[in-house]
Amino acid sequence: MTQRPTGAAYSVTVRLEYANSPGALGRITSVIGEGGGDIEAVDVVNSTRQKMRRDITINTRDTHHSQELIAALRKIPGVRLVNYSDPTFLLHLGGKIHVQSKTPLRTRNDLSLAYTPGVGRVSRAIYERPADVWSLTSKGRTVAVVSDGSAVLGLGNLGPEAALPVLEGKVMLFRELAGVDAWPIALATQEPEEIVETVKRIAPGFGGVNLEDISAPRCFDIEARLANELDIPVFHDDQHGTAVVVLAGLYNAERLTGKPLHDMRIVMVGLGAGGVGTARLLTAAGARRIIGFDKGGAIHRGHDYGANSGHRWIADNTNPEGYVGDLAGALEGADVFIGLSGPGILPPEAAAKMSDDAVIFALANPDPELFPDNAPPNVRVMATGRSDFPNQINNALCFPGFFKGLLDVQARGVNREMEMEAAKAIASCVPARQLNEEYLVPNLFNRSVAIAVARAVAEAARKTGLARRTGRRASVPSFAVHR
Amino acid sequence: MTQRPTGAAYSVTVRLEYANSPGALGRITSVIGEGGGDIEAVDVVNSTRQKMRRDITINTRDTHHSQELIAALRKIPGVRLVNYSDPTFLLHLGGKIHVQSKTPLRTRNDLSLAYTPGVGRVSRAIYERPADVWSLTSKGRTVAVVSDGSAVLGLGNLGPEAALPVLEGKVMLFRELAGVDAWPIALATQEPEEIVETVKRIAPGFGGVNLEDISAPRCFDIEARLANELDIPVFHDDQHGTAVVVLAGLYNAERLTGKPLHDMRIVMVGLGAGGVGTARLLTAAGARRIIGFDKGGAIHRGHDYGANSGHRWIADNTNPEGYVGDLAGALEGADVFIGLSGPGILPPEAAAKMSDDAVIFALANPDPELFPDNAPPNVRVMATGRSDFPNQINNALCFPGFFKGLLDVQARGVNREMEMEAAKAIASCVPARQLNEEYLVPNLFNRSVAIAVARAVAEAARKTGLARRTGRRASVPSFAVHR
Repeated sequence: MTQRPTGAAYSVTVRLEYANSPGALGRITSVIGEGGGDIEAVDVVNSTRQKMRRDITINTRDTHHSQELIAALRKIPGVRLVNYSDPTFLLHLGGKIHVQSKTPLRTRNDLSLAYTPGVGRVSRAIYERPADVWSLTSKGRTVAVVSDGSAVLGLGNLGPEAALPVLEGKVMLFRELAGVDAWPIALATQEPEEIVETVKRIAPGFGGVNLEDISAPRCFDIEARLANELDIPVFHDDQHGTAVVVLAGLYNAERLTGKPLHDMRIVMVGLGAGGVGTARLLTAAGARRIIGFDKGGAIHRGHDYGANSGHRWIADNTNPEGYVGDLAGALEGADVFIGLSGPGILPPEAAAKMSDDAVIFALANPDPELFPDNAPPNVRVMATGRSDFPNQINNALCFPGFFKGLLDVQARGVNREMEMEAAKAIASCVPARQLNEEYLVPNLFNRSVAIAVARAVAEAARKTGLARRTGRRASVPSFAVHR
Repeated sequence: MTQRPTGAAYSVTVRLEYANSPGALGRITSVIGEGGGDIEAVDVVNSTRQKMRRDITINTRDTHHSQELIAALRKIPGVRLVNYSDPTFLLHLGGKIHVQSKTPLRTRNDLSLAYTPGVGRVSRAIYERPADVWSLTSKGRTVAVVSDGSAVLGLGNLGPEAALPVLEGKVMLFRELAGVDAWPIALATQEPEEIVETVKRIAPGFGGVNLEDISAPRCFDIEARLANELDIPVFHDDQHGTAVVVLAGLYNAERLTGKPLHDMRIVMVGLGAGGVGTARLLTAAGARRIIGFDKGGAIHRGHDYGANSGHRWIADNTNPEGYVGDLAGALEGADVFIGLSGPGILPPEAAAKMSDDAVIFALANPDPELFPDNAPPNVRVMATGRSDFPNQINNALCFPGFFKGLLDVQARGVNREMEMEAAKAIASCVPARQLNEEYLVPNLFNRSVAIAVARAVAEAARKTGLARRTGRRASVPSFAVHR
């Protein structure tokens, strides 16, 4: 069995006090090493001839593992565990984001320009020319990151308050990767009708809406209604962010293996938000041979998928041969496996029956459908959702730049063309001469990705008529400088 | 007639080109001076032996005045007006606020603490202990500044988009004066029921709600319902911010004139949001002799004020003698005039009939009920809403510190005790030895005001049982450091 590696997300800092004698630290570090902990840092807090106090930061596998290590440290004779703290929680104290003024308010003059009485003229200008709200307020730079907390990460329906740390993390990524302003909106309702209503009512101050961690199948109709009823773009990242990055990975797998996307036999497992979004985008991009599996088996025409509009779409648009067998059967000879399901769903034996040069995207988090270490030799390309293996399929490659592009043209909505162009842009950030089985998608911290994605999205918006602003440069608005 | 003075809020920067000869600049500045413009700055853009290009920033009285000056400049022979720009609008380009991450996201480690997988543990912790949302997210530091745009400044129902620049200005003041995070929420509805619903649904991410520029009488019931149905404080600044600063001014007028508040005969004109809020707070603070006037005359018991719950309250709780005469009659012998109405409502002759040591708060904006220059000799203290006269009654003396105090104790609501204590705190920021007729309320940029107000509000919240956090220091939460 492949064990989860240790990481900073599960680190713990222990403060230890012990008699200052040779070998004491060695005994401590051995206990940590034997327990499977990775020492990240050792600092002296206080040292006298007699006593030593140190802070040791240890990366662990998970919360249970860190508790085991703490218990082991407590048992070392002559060593006192003074306290221990948790860097992840310390980083979250007081939240992770804050609001800044762009200009200081130091004098009366500052105030009379930015607030009363000057601001009254700006309000009146917007009233008289409503389109000016895009340039004279933060609307044109700001995304609402909205969740009802019904599907927080992979953890389930934890509610809106518990979604906030995730939304704030997303806001940070918007800022850091694309220079986009965003604000978290956690909704105290999980009624689709009320979610739609509420987002519509708070829309005037935002240039776009990123829906987040809303459970399937509710998310499909909520997004569709909002997209239809609002004049700003609405993008459910769990669906489309995932889809775009998966498609980017497949474009590069196409370059590597030479198998064209439209010929690939693709098996998908897990048809929640991400799975449905991916099936739709791959189909739009030309994939014709997709079979999707959910808990009930292969999705196929003729079965009634009730209120799940996502599954209805998949039934109507994929699985052309009407396959109704099991997953193992579908995998025989398949070219691509896309998992958005759960750990271990793809046994190595089943993967071995896939075609030569098989492509496996095992995206279940934190534990993938198949660990790369266990992939059989016919698997040529493997990607996961994890940062500790090559080829991390991470939505953050898409959404910051995607919204940057939408805002740059003051887009009225989102369409598949933008998503396909964004996928091509991401794929193209891996230079042809560097592309290989272990470098399929660009690094998350490669700042040129967001720029490339933004440009591609803006261009697609212009071409498809969804751009309010069609010029390529920021124009100085007429009210600001007169001739 | 008193003319409005020039100011930076109505400044214009003109770029002029002219033959480089002695006396040329002098001719230009004379034209500006004769036209009543104040030159704020003169800069060289480009200079050759033949030609000079200069930017001249001119403070004007209003937009009409700046247009007049531009027309006059265009007429000077040999001078070409290249262009002109407007600093107020330039400052608003792209909005006035933005969002920052508190910690950078530079490495995988950063990301694994602030986002996945680390953030999942924080979400789970909040799910298991809901109160932790106050410390582990930005909720505990953040105020929603909410408007429906139905009463934008004194300009009327301009709609939510036009309210945004005002809301952003408010966000700046929260940040700059009290270090509080705030975010503007402009609502695409003016239905009270829908406003209440919407604010309740977005409340999970906020530690308080500042209602702003919502028209009376709708604002009274909207605020009352929200205060009743939410477990975070809701404060309609137009009502209570105004009330608190007026009371602070009256406390200091009491110190100056020696007339106690409960004996003062107070005439109020203008019973919108600010007037009603002020009447309620002054009554709570002990004032017993208030007569309030609205367009229909003196508010008195026995008249039916229909759906206006604010006026009903005033009818039931003020004007004990049932005065039904006109304003001039009520002013005879009155000690205090509080105007929140319109320009010129208080003629100098009427003010002259007030008592000796009369106190006049003429707060209509931008043009007060009576200009201080025109006050008769019996008026001892005059305050306005303007920054260009002494004694500016400005809500910004209250709301930033008020919310800081509420957030510091994670308050469940707002009450009159907090408002009275905030008024005392503001009044006390003018030291006794400095208090005089022209220094009644502290300077807006005096940073100790917000600190004093926050402390007073937090203390009042503790005393009245509305504080979730009762300790005086920020405690390190148990999840962060274990012993």
